[in-house]
Amino acid sequence: MKVIKPRSGTAFILKKDQYLLVEDLEGQQVSDMVCFAGKEYKEKISSGKTLDFEATTNLTTGNFIWSNRSRKLLQIVHDDAKKHDFILAPCSKETFKILYKDHDTTHSCLDNLTQALKPYGITKDDIPTAFNIFMNVQIKDTKIAVLPPQSLKGDRIVFKCLETCLVALTACSAKDSNGGTFKPIGYQVLENF
Amino acid sequence: MKVIKPRSGTAFILKKDQYLLVEDLEGQQVSDMVCFAGKEYKEKISSGKTLDFEATTNLTTGNFIWSNRSRKLLQIVHDDAKKHDFILAPCSKETFKILYKDHDTTHSCLDNLTQALKPYGITKDDIPTAFNIFMNVQIKDTKIAVLPPQSLKGDRIVFKCLETCLVALTACSAKDSNGGTFKPIGYQVLENF
Repeated sequence: MKVIKPRSGTAFILKKDQYLLVEDLEGQQVSDMVCFAGKEYKEKISSGKTLDFEATTNLTTGNFIWSNRSRKLLQIVHDDAKKHDFILAPCSKETFKILYKDHDTTHSCLDNLTQALKPYGITKDDIPTAFNIFMNVQIKDTKIAVLPPQSLKGDRIVFKCLETCLVALTACSAKDSNGGTFKPIGYQVLENF
Repeated sequence: MKVIKPRSGTAFILKKDQYLLVEDLEGQQVSDMVCFAGKEYKEKISSGKTLDFEATTNLTTGNFIWSNRSRKLLQIVHDDAKKHDFILAPCSKETFKILYKDHDTTHSCLDNLTQALKPYGITKDDIPTAFNIFMNVQIKDTKIAVLPPQSLKGDRIVFKCLETCLVALTACSAKDSNGGTFKPIGYQVLENF
């Protein structure tokens, strides 16, 4: 199991037919995931397309993650936590300042994704709304609330890769998204599952 | 009042401190709106940032439309219909094929936005989730449903422009989003409101 340290990120190639396993190593820790495909990585995961085609905000086993070109990039094939988010953008230094009145600007998910993706020619402006693994966003009577994750220590989600992708993953840096503490995230690329 | 013909789109510059008025000329007609700002239009409206900062899926008078750079681009200053969507991506030819089993591929919002934005150097892959004016998307027990618009003939929404933007607007082309018929959309750029 590879480990993403608290408040950091990484990027790697996931090939078609491989599996990506992401594990909450200690519990209540979010991992923001973005994926890019196609020539020059102009194709990317799309919240808007996925929510339209899957017709649920509660994406879990069996659901697909679609791209902005209306192609299925990933399928969720295993899911312990059964609560993730694909509505909210990655936390940024502005998130901390505007929502938390916190001027700690060093370790946002947007910055960590940007740093991890820089070697692949992807810039901050190119980063879409992430699939926020283990993130507990509640929509109740049109109000949006970020609650502590429901994921327990050892909870896993596994994606089957349907199109070769560049994947970036973080151990999320937003206080409210992670029950107030920052923990690591584990991941593995598997040939079979 | 300028008129966007059924199943078409347009683009124009909206200057800081101007107002954009969009009117449902006949009732129950959606208009997809995207906005770009900054150098080379790399800054754009962001569903994920807006829903995070505004904390509601029911954006109406007083709410801001934020960019991927966490800046406020527009503010809603008047709203008759009080029901719009900022969750779903613009309809594309794949939407018609996958959701409607309809192979009419000539007039999607994504294609109309792409055509309108081409003179400004923006490509199809650059187009984000639109602010879908008058679109009636219901999220109930995590299920997403597209219902006929609640907007009546003459209903208007007015945005104050907070940063000079390139705006693209459509008269939407998706059957289910418009109660089954395709109608025009009116708009005006105003110096005062």
